[in-house]
Amino acid sequence: MSGAHLARLLGDVSRERPVYAALARSVRGLVQDGRLALRTRLPAERDLAAALGVSRTTVTAAYDRLRDEGYVESRQGAGSWTVLPPVRMSSAEPPGAAPGGRFGRAHPVPDDAGFIDLGCATPGAPAIFGEAVAAAVDELPRHSSGPGYEPAGLAGLRQVIADGYAARGVPTRPDQIVVTTGAQHAFTLLTQVLIEPGDAVMVERPTYPHALGALRRRGARLVPVGVNEGWDVELAAGAMRQAAVRTAYTIPDFQNPTGRLMPAADRAALVDAARRADAFLVADETFADLAHDLDAPREPPLASFDSGGRVVTIGSASKLMWGGLRIGWIRTTAPLARRLVLAREPFDMASPVLDQLIVQELLLRVEDVRAERAESLLRGRDALAGALRELLPGWEFRLPAGGMSLWARIGAPVATLVAEAAERRGVRVVAGPVFGVDGVLEDYVRLPYVLPPDTLRLAVERLALAHREVEAAPAARPLPAYV
Amino acid sequence: MSGAHLARLLGDVSRERPVYAALARSVRGLVQDGRLALRTRLPAERDLAAALGVSRTTVTAAYDRLRDEGYVESRQGAGSWTVLPPVRMSSAEPPGAAPGGRFGRAHPVPDDAGFIDLGCATPGAPAIFGEAVAAAVDELPRHSSGPGYEPAGLAGLRQVIADGYAARGVPTRPDQIVVTTGAQHAFTLLTQVLIEPGDAVMVERPTYPHALGALRRRGARLVPVGVNEGWDVELAAGAMRQAAVRTAYTIPDFQNPTGRLMPAADRAALVDAARRADAFLVADETFADLAHDLDAPREPPLASFDSGGRVVTIGSASKLMWGGLRIGWIRTTAPLARRLVLAREPFDMASPVLDQLIVQELLLRVEDVRAERAESLLRGRDALAGALRELLPGWEFRLPAGGMSLWARIGAPVATLVAEAAERRGVRVVAGPVFGVDGVLEDYVRLPYVLPPDTLRLAVERLALAHREVEAAPAARPLPAYV
Repeated sequence: MSGAHLARLLGDVSRERPVYAALARSVRGLVQDGRLALRTRLPAERDLAAALGVSRTTVTAAYDRLRDEGYVESRQGAGSWTVLPPVRMSSAEPPGAAPGGRFGRAHPVPDDAGFIDLGCATPGAPAIFGEAVAAAVDELPRHSSGPGYEPAGLAGLRQVIADGYAARGVPTRPDQIVVTTGAQHAFTLLTQVLIEPGDAVMVERPTYPHALGALRRRGARLVPVGVNEGWDVELAAGAMRQAAVRTAYTIPDFQNPTGRLMPAADRAALVDAARRADAFLVADETFADLAHDLDAPREPPLASFDSGGRVVTIGSASKLMWGGLRIGWIRTTAPLARRLVLAREPFDMASPVLDQLIVQELLLRVEDVRAERAESLLRGRDALAGALRELLPGWEFRLPAGGMSLWARIGAPVATLVAEAAERRGVRVVAGPVFGVDGVLEDYVRLPYVLPPDTLRLAVERLALAHREVEAAPAARPLPAYV
Repeated sequence: MSGAHLARLLGDVSRERPVYAALARSVRGLVQDGRLALRTRLPAERDLAAALGVSRTTVTAAYDRLRDEGYVESRQGAGSWTVLPPVRMSSAEPPGAAPGGRFGRAHPVPDDAGFIDLGCATPGAPAIFGEAVAAAVDELPRHSSGPGYEPAGLAGLRQVIADGYAARGVPTRPDQIVVTTGAQHAFTLLTQVLIEPGDAVMVERPTYPHALGALRRRGARLVPVGVNEGWDVELAAGAMRQAAVRTAYTIPDFQNPTGRLMPAADRAALVDAARRADAFLVADETFADLAHDLDAPREPPLASFDSGGRVVTIGSASKLMWGGLRIGWIRTTAPLARRLVLAREPFDMASPVLDQLIVQELLLRVEDVRAERAESLLRGRDALAGALRELLPGWEFRLPAGGMSLWARIGAPVATLVAEAAERRGVRVVAGPVFGVDGVLEDYVRLPYVLPPDTLRLAVERLALAHREVEAAPAARPLPAYV
């Protein structure tokens, strides 16, 4: 990797002091969230210094720190490359040795029962899960005598999914549905089929980190539009036209991570803007069934405003039902569905049959699942909100009407530091920058409320200690951005 | 797409007559097996003619034929692009309208119960499947109260897989195993982690078509070595050094499609050659448990000759157990396993939990599964071989000692024509060129023997009619290559 290339990924590190610490932190962030692949050869110190316009001593000091923290290895004559530090198994080890990825579980989570993981916003299976599994197992013999490959998905499941859209006002035929191996798989397939390297893709800021990862891997040019204060469709429409956006990715229902629900008028206007810009609009409905008040009127699906096949919808069983079921789907036009089926085959051939049958059973009783989720999420939301108000009164948040997370504003750009301190105290949270394109959002953290109320309260107690630690000892640590 | 680019993909079409027909057939092949993406804008006739060194009239005639067959659409002013013809629902339609992909089920298969699909070499689930499902369902509640994401795979399954390798003489720890969503997913992940665009990758010729597809998508430079007559390791070693091969892909056990079993001495020599060339050796053991005579001594796994972490092994539940279970795995070093886990997350996050539990149960009783498969595959193999000897005595083949297919040599380079004629007569087979890099192997077809003996006999009857049709009417059809 050239110095210029890494410098582009890093952005401007020279505004922060000391620069070497800011540089080390930025590289660490790139490694942790996967933007910098492991075993990437880092540029020579001289090259990176020239590309960043800093002294070579600064780069040397940054590489030294990264080596100390375990994010870089070097060998005489072979240069330096990125690695991950060994997995930390107790809270006694230094912060640099914290597990890698911030928002995933790629690494063994410490086995300490006291460790609370708020990194992964996803609950266990619902109460009727066992019944659905039993019904699916009864159906299985009708399938298991054949080869078991159905690249588009089982016909029965596609019919049930199509019926679900029809019930929400979007007439849909089964041949418009492609069953995928989870929503992430659905999104990756769509990046393959809709996006060419270099294409401009509009994303919300903040948004789902793995979607950003998939778009980066595809070589898309990301055009972020802020949604912290809700959607500004006029702004989005202008950006679409000016940046020649080919595809826009939106989470209209209980947006991840802000929890916001897009109003119907904005939906209509956004579809209209996409039509005028001749762009596809990918609507991620992963959270659409997770309203906390099931009596509140639902907003119409984005696809209901679409007449030209411009809105492509992603659905998922992972959040509503269970993450251990790897089933998602795409609703689109029949021709595009066919292209997606062709595109998926080289990746994973088809989706697991038994999981499809289970999801079909659960969808037939989706109102039961929605009711259970609404009740437990509402309880979790209020427990978390109550604990925050009491123990971290400076943190601001809106109470979302659905979804699984609070998006809390800390009041100072220290989210990454708070997350690091929290990890040492036994609670994992995801800091704001992970949800953004360009390292901003340092004053936000996402706090899922899928765990039991007591656990959430304990997590907030630890967060409060972590926040106090960060506030108390700013000089002893690398200075955060903009402070 | 430029004329020069398409010309490179097409290879030399001018050796065949008439050239326009050969050109049309080659383009159709590229579309059918996915090397040419759908909606690819074709070069202007003038450009392609220049790049191929043929007349513009020839290209015009080829494009006309492709339009007639439904593989190209054109619009005045917008040029021409690749498409797939509508799915054929009866055998009355012309050959050009045959379903697209040759070796997959991307398209709806005609619902005619009489249609015999020998395209997909994979059987139904084994007899003990129901018991394994029941046992897995009993285990499920221990997992379904948690989030359900285990990117490396369930610890229990990884232990059972590791024990299986140890029993075959390859000591393995669970942290050397990554569970994937099928073998194809495993291979695609490996291409992401081991291979950079432009890297030289050695492949067997013939080999598994979807592996070729994954390598092409990754931008690998393919270096084929013939294995129709068995492995020539000296030749492979020379090619590895000369082409600076970084990774070699081999199917040592009942190779797909030849059915050959690599002898122990060749295994040792191949690993040694990889070591000297400093290349990774990816061993696909998808068929390793499918010996027809379970009393015959097994060849040691390729990994047993390896001391440096150079051999990476792919395993799969799809062929031994059931394709509707989307579970495969990779055995490698612990550090590379960790990189693979990081690389898989953006694709599909994790594999389905219930499928993993079922595979774990089946692996604990793998000898029962092997015995059942051995018995039924042996019966299928002998039924197929008997019918071929009787009805197509000119076709040559070896009787494989394991796997699921015969690799039959037709005696003339007409495999694609025979496959097209067979499709019209109600049997789908995969022609040799699909298994190769460069359009050769036109005198081979792969004939899986997973279907019941009576069905296999009926399939051979139809194949014999198809072959006779091709032999009888050569002038009425585009001339095959080299005739």
